[in-house]
Amino acid sequence: MKYSSIPVAHTLVSLFKFNGIQQVVISPGSRNAPLILAFSQDPYFRCYSIVDERSAAFFALGLAQQSGKPAVLLCTSGSALLNYYPAVAEGYYSRIPMVILSADRPEYKIDIGDGQTIRQNGVFEKHIGFQAALGQDVTHATEAIRWEAGDPPENARQLKQMQDQCQSENENLICMALKTALNRRLPVHLNVPFEEPLYNMQDEPPVNPSLSQAAESDRLNPDWTALRNKWEGANRKMILIGVLPPASIQAEILEVLGQDPSVMVFTETTSNVHHPQFFPSIDSILAPIEKTENAEAHYQNLRPDVLLTLGGMVVSKKIKQFLRRYKPQTHWHIDPYSAPDTYYSLDGHVQMGAGDFFREFLPSVKKGVCAYKAPWLEVMQTYRNRRKAYLNKIPFTDFHAFHQVLQSIPPGVQVQLANSSTVRYSQLFEMGAENAVYCNRGTSGIEGSTSTAVGASVNSEQPTLLLTGDLSFFYDINGLWNNYIKADFRIIVLNNGGGGIFRILPGKTENPDFETYFETVQHRSIEALCKAFGIGYALADDSGSLGANLKTFYKPTGSPELLEIKTPRKLNDTILLDYFDFLSWSLPINQ
Amino acid sequence: MKYSSIPVAHTLVSLFKFNGIQQVVISPGSRNAPLILAFSQDPYFRCYSIVDERSAAFFALGLAQQSGKPAVLLCTSGSALLNYYPAVAEGYYSRIPMVILSADRPEYKIDIGDGQTIRQNGVFEKHIGFQAALGQDVTHATEAIRWEAGDPPENARQLKQMQDQCQSENENLICMALKTALNRRLPVHLNVPFEEPLYNMQDEPPVNPSLSQAAESDRLNPDWTALRNKWEGANRKMILIGVLPPASIQAEILEVLGQDPSVMVFTETTSNVHHPQFFPSIDSILAPIEKTENAEAHYQNLRPDVLLTLGGMVVSKKIKQFLRRYKPQTHWHIDPYSAPDTYYSLDGHVQMGAGDFFREFLPSVKKGVCAYKAPWLEVMQTYRNRRKAYLNKIPFTDFHAFHQVLQSIPPGVQVQLANSSTVRYSQLFEMGAENAVYCNRGTSGIEGSTSTAVGASVNSEQPTLLLTGDLSFFYDINGLWNNYIKADFRIIVLNNGGGGIFRILPGKTENPDFETYFETVQHRSIEALCKAFGIGYALADDSGSLGANLKTFYKPTGSPELLEIKTPRKLNDTILLDYFDFLSWSLPINQ
Repeated sequence: MKYSSIPVAHTLVSLFKFNGIQQVVISPGSRNAPLILAFSQDPYFRCYSIVDERSAAFFALGLAQQSGKPAVLLCTSGSALLNYYPAVAEGYYSRIPMVILSADRPEYKIDIGDGQTIRQNGVFEKHIGFQAALGQDVTHATEAIRWEAGDPPENARQLKQMQDQCQSENENLICMALKTALNRRLPVHLNVPFEEPLYNMQDEPPVNPSLSQAAESDRLNPDWTALRNKWEGANRKMILIGVLPPASIQAEILEVLGQDPSVMVFTETTSNVHHPQFFPSIDSILAPIEKTENAEAHYQNLRPDVLLTLGGMVVSKKIKQFLRRYKPQTHWHIDPYSAPDTYYSLDGHVQMGAGDFFREFLPSVKKGVCAYKAPWLEVMQTYRNRRKAYLNKIPFTDFHAFHQVLQSIPPGVQVQLANSSTVRYSQLFEMGAENAVYCNRGTSGIEGSTSTAVGASVNSEQPTLLLTGDLSFFYDINGLWNNYIKADFRIIVLNNGGGGIFRILPGKTENPDFETYFETVQHRSIEALCKAFGIGYALADDSGSLGANLKTFYKPTGSPELLEIKTPRKLNDTILLDYFDFLSWSLPINQ
Repeated sequence: MKYSSIPVAHTLVSLFKFNGIQQVVISPGSRNAPLILAFSQDPYFRCYSIVDERSAAFFALGLAQQSGKPAVLLCTSGSALLNYYPAVAEGYYSRIPMVILSADRPEYKIDIGDGQTIRQNGVFEKHIGFQAALGQDVTHATEAIRWEAGDPPENARQLKQMQDQCQSENENLICMALKTALNRRLPVHLNVPFEEPLYNMQDEPPVNPSLSQAAESDRLNPDWTALRNKWEGANRKMILIGVLPPASIQAEILEVLGQDPSVMVFTETTSNVHHPQFFPSIDSILAPIEKTENAEAHYQNLRPDVLLTLGGMVVSKKIKQFLRRYKPQTHWHIDPYSAPDTYYSLDGHVQMGAGDFFREFLPSVKKGVCAYKAPWLEVMQTYRNRRKAYLNKIPFTDFHAFHQVLQSIPPGVQVQLANSSTVRYSQLFEMGAENAVYCNRGTSGIEGSTSTAVGASVNSEQPTLLLTGDLSFFYDINGLWNNYIKADFRIIVLNNGGGGIFRILPGKTENPDFETYFETVQHRSIEALCKAFGIGYALADDSGSLGANLKTFYKPTGSPELLEIKTPRKLNDTILLDYFDFLSWSLPINQ
């Protein structure tokens, strides 16, 4: 094996390897050559090459989402780095860590009109767990022209001292970055200046860095007694589950919660939690209430005394509006890292994973007696029946297509949902407990859904389905511009001819400005794009052709496949809004 | 005409209109609805709709590049804004202003787990001329739920006071932003919080903002006497021209400079300056010297006593290396805005445009006598002859294709060059004085060349040619995802199967890692992409087919056209490197 002759390059890869960080997404460049060489020469690392840095960063996010380990991002100097920002913000808010390495020119080349040079240090300041500028290696630099602009050391002893100091400071900074990424699960950024020559390799490591373990496990113990008293003293307990990886909570615990009549558990598809006594499809419960005359009474009935929230972001806007208006007496958030005060009523943060928390907490509390849940289970059953009736009477639209698609997904297929119509529509239906569901809900952006899905699929033994809309699909078309699309990768594009989400927003008006600036009506060929990127293509534009396509869509074909579903742009919103009207009849009058 | 009912929206559009800022690039969203409505309702504004914010920002850069006026960028809340960053940095370093308006949620919704919400204030801190968070409008907010989280005013008088204060602070901040964009030509960012409801319109303006003029013209007068003394006291004067808009310097001035034997003027294609006594293709002069045994003597012959630099970034690395090593006694930079110390020898900044400067300066100084230029003109003539000979003997490659393409461009066609091979190759040939040439050299990124070219073409009466490589073309494929590609837009893609630039870098090694991580060999169909985006397509893969295609390529066809030129990936670098060897024979031995 060969080693880059630049100490900081070897120090970085050594510390990454020691800490088990293995996946590296590389974007091409010259300034980052020492690190490209260092990573790609060591067979320990799994390296991926992706040109568009925006896509590369979301791809890395997908890798980290699945492995639970930080993925490394490596780019050259200049504006390249800035393209990482959307994924960095997503990782920051969804607690998916990436270690960003940006190669830079030496400091004396910044802001003097040199090419491909910007102020790289600290560009992600608002959304980063840790950031540092590593020191310029001194040995190496003496060979270069830097002395034109700086002060060279006066003698060998002084040079050695500078080298040692730089080495130990760099080790420290790298270790702090890894600690943040591993323990706080936040993206981190190290800016690494390199002096030319960049491509020199040698047979021996240029330095022997001290290796230290960055992973830690410490946690604060919550005040169990206080928690227990609040829980047992409450009649109505609501558990609301945001984004959570599959298998975060054991089945026995779900069973205990499901059997407690005083506990209502609200889930979303992205919660990856399933139990027949839980409430998926939150909006199907809440939206109909809005339409009734005695809404206030229903809301009061639903209002919890105690609210426990778990996991990341919640998709439903309606539950947020409801809980902000009908505040619980107590709200605790259970999460190892952070506790946002989403409902302006937070009074406790239990710094534990959801599974660990319930395993300790549930055995110590008594089952409730309040019949909080029962009437709402009836509501749920009614709306399920009504949904079936509604589906039978409506024409082919987004609503109908989502139903068909979600029903068709084979067990085991990993599902990646795009923002924003896609993830919202998906909440209206139930998904199989055998399908892990993911979505970039940290910032809810549309710019990286495809890249994330491809990154997430790379190491998955099961097929992956990306379910996306036409805007998200076109936006992140470069997600397909790499050599890592597996033959079992599947894409379904719901093409409603523009940003369907805007049609269902309150207050929109129907005029050419609306179509241009909100809906952004598109006429681009998805079929031709598939051809350009080597992906199989099929089209469905009614229920029959969709059904026929879905029957064979997941079968192995030896290549990735895309199914475009065309729905009528101007009908979709009416069908969706009418659905909630239709559901509202299902509310029991005298609750 | 209808008005948004939200005062800050009306205040913004009023001040923009008053200051003649007319072009607005809108990306879809809901939070930014008040501003979408305000801009699109007023026929004064020319609004463009582009979904991918990264592309939208480069498109705006192209608009501003041509109009000389700041273009407005408008996006919704969340990560959307972050996608502007590459273009913001480019605008910052190439002094092309944009006014960025990001709609935001009210402050109490930040970092509490609300959807599509990040810390928008100050995200561009490192590369922005001015940034501010505008105040949340108070009238409007009283209707909304914000009082759950804040303190409502106690009475009507207090409310009115708050409104007036907010209004006058907002007017101030907007004016400061416009001053920076108009006078310092830097990108600026205003973050604008909006409370729901977002779509309300009314017949009367919601507020009557005070309008003030933001444009100023003041400039520091340079020390003319000192400048004159240095100039006249010097034997060898070099003028080096970076990126400059066409017609920045009058023909009479160029003529005076061209007739002075003591003045060598170095230009690049992006200088947009032409004179038979000037030196284009800097590297054709410098590269051969490297190869000769008596390089030192040649360098000393070329070394200037006085260096004047004009305009923006310089493409040639070799002239930078040369001038850093063979420093002039005096270096002034002539530019209205900034003066980077690119050669570590800057001792004066004349804050004027190049044309104004020479108009005042040249008539006051005597013509020089030193025969600085004459021998180098001979060298130039020799290398021109040798280039012709070389072209006749080489096979079809990038080098050959660039020659054919650059020769074929009809007068008047605007040329947009992508980074990085494209702009570098173009420097090796001469381009017509009738072709304005542009390239994003502020950060030299590859992420926005297509979008910039499309933005630049929109208001151009002449056809536009985008000359790009395969990596840049794929990277910014979303530059074609809009409805503004005119029928006279032309694209030529030099497809050498990967990042050709990396093959010509020193120190590269030939192995699979090189092809994967540096060159990033691609196998994607450009033809199918053209089909997806509705663009005509033709292919050339040898000199004959290229010549035939170029004969008709610029003729009107009623649709945009793309010409893909396939060149042999592994031959290109040899041909280029051999060219400099071949040229080196052209140096006169006893200079």
